[in-house]
Amino acid sequence: MPGEFDLIRRHFTRPASHTALAAGDDAALLAPRAGMQLAVSTDMLVAGTHFFADTEPTDLGWKTLAVNVSDLAAMGAEPRWAFLALALPTADDAWLAAFADGLFACAENFGLDLAGGDTTRGPLNLCATVIGEVPAGTALTRAGARPGDLLWVSGQPGRAALGLQALRDGLALSAAGRTACLAALHHPQPRVALGLALRGIASAALDVSDGLLGDLRHLLAASRCGALIEHAALPLGALLADGAPPAIAEAALLGGGDDYELLFTAPPAQRDTLAAMAGELALPLHCIGQLNADSGQVLLRAPDGSVHLPTTGGYDHFAC
Amino acid sequence: MPGEFDLIRRHFTRPASHTALAAGDDAALLAPRAGMQLAVSTDMLVAGTHFFADTEPTDLGWKTLAVNVSDLAAMGAEPRWAFLALALPTADDAWLAAFADGLFACAENFGLDLAGGDTTRGPLNLCATVIGEVPAGTALTRAGARPGDLLWVSGQPGRAALGLQALRDGLALSAAGRTACLAALHHPQPRVALGLALRGIASAALDVSDGLLGDLRHLLAASRCGALIEHAALPLGALLADGAPPAIAEAALLGGGDDYELLFTAPPAQRDTLAAMAGELALPLHCIGQLNADSGQVLLRAPDGSVHLPTTGGYDHFAC
Repeated sequence: MPGEFDLIRRHFTRPASHTALAAGDDAALLAPRAGMQLAVSTDMLVAGTHFFADTEPTDLGWKTLAVNVSDLAAMGAEPRWAFLALALPTADDAWLAAFADGLFACAENFGLDLAGGDTTRGPLNLCATVIGEVPAGTALTRAGARPGDLLWVSGQPGRAALGLQALRDGLALSAAGRTACLAALHHPQPRVALGLALRGIASAALDVSDGLLGDLRHLLAASRCGALIEHAALPLGALLADGAPPAIAEAALLGGGDDYELLFTAPPAQRDTLAAMAGELALPLHCIGQLNADSGQVLLRAPDGSVHLPTTGGYDHFAC
Repeated sequence: MPGEFDLIRRHFTRPASHTALAAGDDAALLAPRAGMQLAVSTDMLVAGTHFFADTEPTDLGWKTLAVNVSDLAAMGAEPRWAFLALALPTADDAWLAAFADGLFACAENFGLDLAGGDTTRGPLNLCATVIGEVPAGTALTRAGARPGDLLWVSGQPGRAALGLQALRDGLALSAAGRTACLAALHHPQPRVALGLALRGIASAALDVSDGLLGDLRHLLAASRCGALIEHAALPLGALLADGAPPAIAEAALLGGGDDYELLFTAPPAQRDTLAAMAGELALPLHCIGQLNADSGQVLLRAPDGSVHLPTTGGYDHFAC
């Protein structure tokens, strides 16, 4: 039945803008620009683990690429090329058309050529690999933070976790809150412009995919630092306004994953620069704490001044 | 259960030799050498479609990378980096250790750094992406063949298909034949050295993954040529010596996939060069026919001189 392959190929073949040779040969051919290092990330999304089987295919197409693009953003890399391997239980034309629409919307939004891929029959599985370019020596990593650096997070972490609870557990939110939280869950906005702007300014960065505290611990482990988070500085107000009860809002903000905001550190001297950057990018940047020399340790200072260990952990796909 | 992630990470973390920043950050960082284009290929292997669920994990680890490396060989690219995403139903320590052994055996054999990946829970699915380097403008593609070029195939196509039939259908082979055919099926040898040697000599190339005739049609479509295959020149002798009945041997050679030999074209003036190359690489190179201007058409000339359409087709994963 080569007809099925032709059908699938039709959905995923659109003109490439900066690829020497795209899909159709044994491999794609890319010509990186001189002086560039390549950032490469691969993520596999599985029905039942990362998304509900009945997720709108347009959303799924967007998110399949977006979670990878977010990894490039966290490295300060410019997205350039994407590859998609997918296993499908059936070749459903309408589903594929909608999935491809979402995928290409994300690709076009962030300047990616879909340069190749693979399709096979099997339980639904989506594996995207993205390649970005970053001038040699300027990539943001997890390892550069120093004691005294301030800790920042972009946008509104927590909404994707609230959206998931609204869908899965019937969590009641305001109408506008539900809309915002489902959008965060289904249509995450990788912070590419922020990642590019942070080159030379942030000392370390990563994206919040496993939960703010869980990802913070990764950054602290790589940088051999500790952190003190100021509870009063956490961007909880918007989540409360969305209709989330305070304890659920806090757990979503600190422990929820899937928001794909950037968590980063920068010397205190960069505070004004970052405030101006937030305005230019129309993206809130919240200074939520400071790093110290207590390797790996995360503490939370309550509004009353007391300091304690946070109780909310990160997210582990093998635990869900 | 972060313990499971640690376990998995332990199996797949080995020192990288030529990667600026390997697994452990949001993305890997690679520094391509100046003047190089990158060849990128991704393949997804699914239990039940591409391999039996009880396949030896060491073989599976080897093959997961080898099928991708073969795509780089077909482009004349030097393998450099690999990324592995896998979905696992359970975290089985012994299985993972054996799988990783096979994977790294292949990586080390062909000079690949395993530079990153992803692991998640789900039905067994293995997705490898490999990146190779090729001097700009020298990659082998499917599109350069001309009428009059000779058609060549390397090694012994057909053995993997016979191995599959021996396992699945109980096809009787000689003891030595069965060993050779199962080795071809489980432990394919990507023709990297041949691909590199063919730069500047072959006019077009691809690897035989979907069956010799099926892949030949891809080459002919890209090059807008036809081909006449000489039955007498097909390397059937070894398959007959393996114990395969003549009709089964011919069908395996022309229609079986999974051998990962290279099928390529070259001007007749390169015949002596290719004969010498076969000797240097200790790899048989069979001249099995010639290209003509009959776009897309494949004909087979029988030993009695009669010419007919071949009846064996290619391999389609959606048909199995």
